[in-house]
Amino acid sequence: MKQYIETHKDRFLNELLDLLRIPSVSADSKFKGDMRSAAAFVQKSMLAAGADTAEIYETPGHPIVYGEKIIDPSLPTVLVYGHYDVQPADPYELWDSPPFEPVIKNDRIYARGACDDKGQFYMHIKALEMMVATNTLACNIKMMIEGEEEVGSSHLETFVNSHKELLECDTILISDTSIIANDVPSIETGLRGLTYMEVEVVGANRDLHSGVYGGGVANPINVLCEMIASLTDADGRITIPGFYDQVVELSAEERAALNAAPFDLEAYKEDLQIGDVAGEKGYTTIERTSVRPTLDVNGIWGGYTGEGAKTVLPSKANAKISMRLVPNQTDEEICALFTKHFEAIAPASVRVSVKPHHGGLPYVTPTDSVEYRAAEMAMEESFGKKPIPARGGGSIPIVALFEQVLGRKSILMGFGLDIDALHSPNESYGLFNYYKGIETIPLFFKHYAQLKK
Amino acid sequence: MKQYIETHKDRFLNELLDLLRIPSVSADSKFKGDMRSAAAFVQKSMLAAGADTAEIYETPGHPIVYGEKIIDPSLPTVLVYGHYDVQPADPYELWDSPPFEPVIKNDRIYARGACDDKGQFYMHIKALEMMVATNTLACNIKMMIEGEEEVGSSHLETFVNSHKELLECDTILISDTSIIANDVPSIETGLRGLTYMEVEVVGANRDLHSGVYGGGVANPINVLCEMIASLTDADGRITIPGFYDQVVELSAEERAALNAAPFDLEAYKEDLQIGDVAGEKGYTTIERTSVRPTLDVNGIWGGYTGEGAKTVLPSKANAKISMRLVPNQTDEEICALFTKHFEAIAPASVRVSVKPHHGGLPYVTPTDSVEYRAAEMAMEESFGKKPIPARGGGSIPIVALFEQVLGRKSILMGFGLDIDALHSPNESYGLFNYYKGIETIPLFFKHYAQLKK
Repeated sequence: MKQYIETHKDRFLNELLDLLRIPSVSADSKFKGDMRSAAAFVQKSMLAAGADTAEIYETPGHPIVYGEKIIDPSLPTVLVYGHYDVQPADPYELWDSPPFEPVIKNDRIYARGACDDKGQFYMHIKALEMMVATNTLACNIKMMIEGEEEVGSSHLETFVNSHKELLECDTILISDTSIIANDVPSIETGLRGLTYMEVEVVGANRDLHSGVYGGGVANPINVLCEMIASLTDADGRITIPGFYDQVVELSAEERAALNAAPFDLEAYKEDLQIGDVAGEKGYTTIERTSVRPTLDVNGIWGGYTGEGAKTVLPSKANAKISMRLVPNQTDEEICALFTKHFEAIAPASVRVSVKPHHGGLPYVTPTDSVEYRAAEMAMEESFGKKPIPARGGGSIPIVALFEQVLGRKSILMGFGLDIDALHSPNESYGLFNYYKGIETIPLFFKHYAQLKK
Repeated sequence: MKQYIETHKDRFLNELLDLLRIPSVSADSKFKGDMRSAAAFVQKSMLAAGADTAEIYETPGHPIVYGEKIIDPSLPTVLVYGHYDVQPADPYELWDSPPFEPVIKNDRIYARGACDDKGQFYMHIKALEMMVATNTLACNIKMMIEGEEEVGSSHLETFVNSHKELLECDTILISDTSIIANDVPSIETGLRGLTYMEVEVVGANRDLHSGVYGGGVANPINVLCEMIASLTDADGRITIPGFYDQVVELSAEERAALNAAPFDLEAYKEDLQIGDVAGEKGYTTIERTSVRPTLDVNGIWGGYTGEGAKTVLPSKANAKISMRLVPNQTDEEICALFTKHFEAIAPASVRVSVKPHHGGLPYVTPTDSVEYRAAEMAMEESFGKKPIPARGGGSIPIVALFEQVLGRKSILMGFGLDIDALHSPNESYGLFNYYKGIETIPLFFKHYAQLKK
């Protein structure tokens, strides 16, 4: 295996760089054509790697690429999931090199999607090529690479529901998460859910002169700020009635285990250049970013934002607000609670509208399952160290759906690092991590097949 | 006089339309060339109207146009002030017709600057033409039309200080304000001051993934919202320590006089399509918009504001915040108080920076002066109704400076209306008001000369 990687490492890298050159941004309709090119690239790669079939399934949104190689119906089947869409790259001016012109610097690949998730799902395609070429594929493999993960996977949900047989499998393997460090391998045992809202606050029917009307007419920006500020209290708790009702409090043991993971607060603050961390009172940074729900404004805009000064009392203000959810919150319920509350706290001097973007359920993976054990053994073999189970703060909405519809658990065996700057300018992915993933994935198949015997 | 206007009305209008076609936006440097064209246009117009001299004075910013006609040193001298710069026109998409392509609809001129202040200062140039042509000019006249009123008149301040002799006069006449209604003439007896700030709140050194870091790292947008919300309390009072210390409370009599002005709250709400007015507890809408100070966010931006959803925890957030001031607040003091307070309330998890844009002092004009009486008589003669003294909510920072440096009071004899939508899309100016102004101004000169005898 290592020999095969060594022989083909340059090609493995160049193929990924070609994929990274395609600006497949799912959130912005102006990249629709690039989304199709990316899907075609993935299909071609699957076939080249040795898949029996690889097809592009159309959806009302961006297409889904599905491929498979069934070697023996009696063997266990692994469904690999990933996504070829990426987050928007703006603000462009903060990138040291253009987001869709990948460059290699200090053994890292810099590009939007380098890690999330092109670099990570492409490891699976190269692992497939390797297992086929070396005739070591130990399980049947199905691969589903979608194009709407960054915008909520809404059409994938429909697809999964209508293709249960096609997607029938024993477990689902996903590389879209991180390890604690290159010398501290870990496996994500949980994900937060998400509900993403967009709000608009409207005051007068037109922009007004802040001198003539100022002080007598509600300013929608001031009002929006007050409404947003009121959504959290002095202890960093979210004030939406019922918000915490379904939140599962961890036991002292679970919290201790969680906080046992290596974490250097000073290094964390140093890396982010912040004077202090912040968050819900009574919880550690590890807990705040994994097992506690959040409310973050992802974007806000209103009034005059150009050069210089404009004394305008604007007609409206807008914000994008998302909440990360934890077991057993559901995005439907939190979306409803948020909407009801936000409308309820609006003063009579303004009108508000609330629009949900997308959401997903939180997820927890058991550490006593065959598939978890297989992942553990694979990583231990490739990293030379037993991986630590860790709860993640991100969201992969589809994981909960897989469990509901396919009745299977997902294994979150990712190879990224915090420094990869996912969703940020200068996203990157380590060459070590890319090749280590390609090396580890076949080991999962090997151990999983053996354990299932 | 009326005859002269009747004969030349079309030309009077077309000349103004030509001026309105020049996008002289002082706040945005990309209109620098247009600012020069506008200044040249004003100079040409003054000379054509009969000024002895008209010159363009350079400044480090936009030029000042000064012209005069001295007919007899023994006669009183009136200094006319106005500004040829306009507010930015965006949001352009809300204009029914392009802001710099004036159109006449329902006897109104629609264009950026139609009223504020091109339409209003140009009335004075046409009034001069008329007085010269009919040989009825009763006072010496000096005209100073600047290009930086909408950005704080900072260079005019230097110019006035260094040209005291040139600007020597008995009173200053300004048309940059409104009347209550076309059948309810009024004269502005006060203006609010202004201090305009820009703030930035910075969290982490880069945009972060809201799943990986959300809940553990301060979100600068949430923090900015909390800081802005905390600047006013539940009663609509501004919480900046010392903010009200210099505010002059009006006597019961003054308040009664102020509230005696015709004002229809229902019509006001109807016009703005708002469910309710808002503002400082214990004051009427008239008071809130004229004799009470304010704090309005004029613009806010941060994070992802594009199409769709981006789960980013942004690195920074910004806002433009301005405060209208009343006697005896000073912009220097309030600027300092705001800066000190805003920096003081910033949590350790963020860094804030505060930058002042510009400011101006509030102003009050006495109603027992010769010049006020002259304005009163002029309006009574042209409108057939005695004008009401009214306090305005807007700001003309330079007015307070004139008093300090030239030792003269300004008469705010404006002819606009609230419906003119100053600083808003679809700004307009009534043809009635334009011609009525041209008719009234010479009457001011006539009565002022007589009263000064």
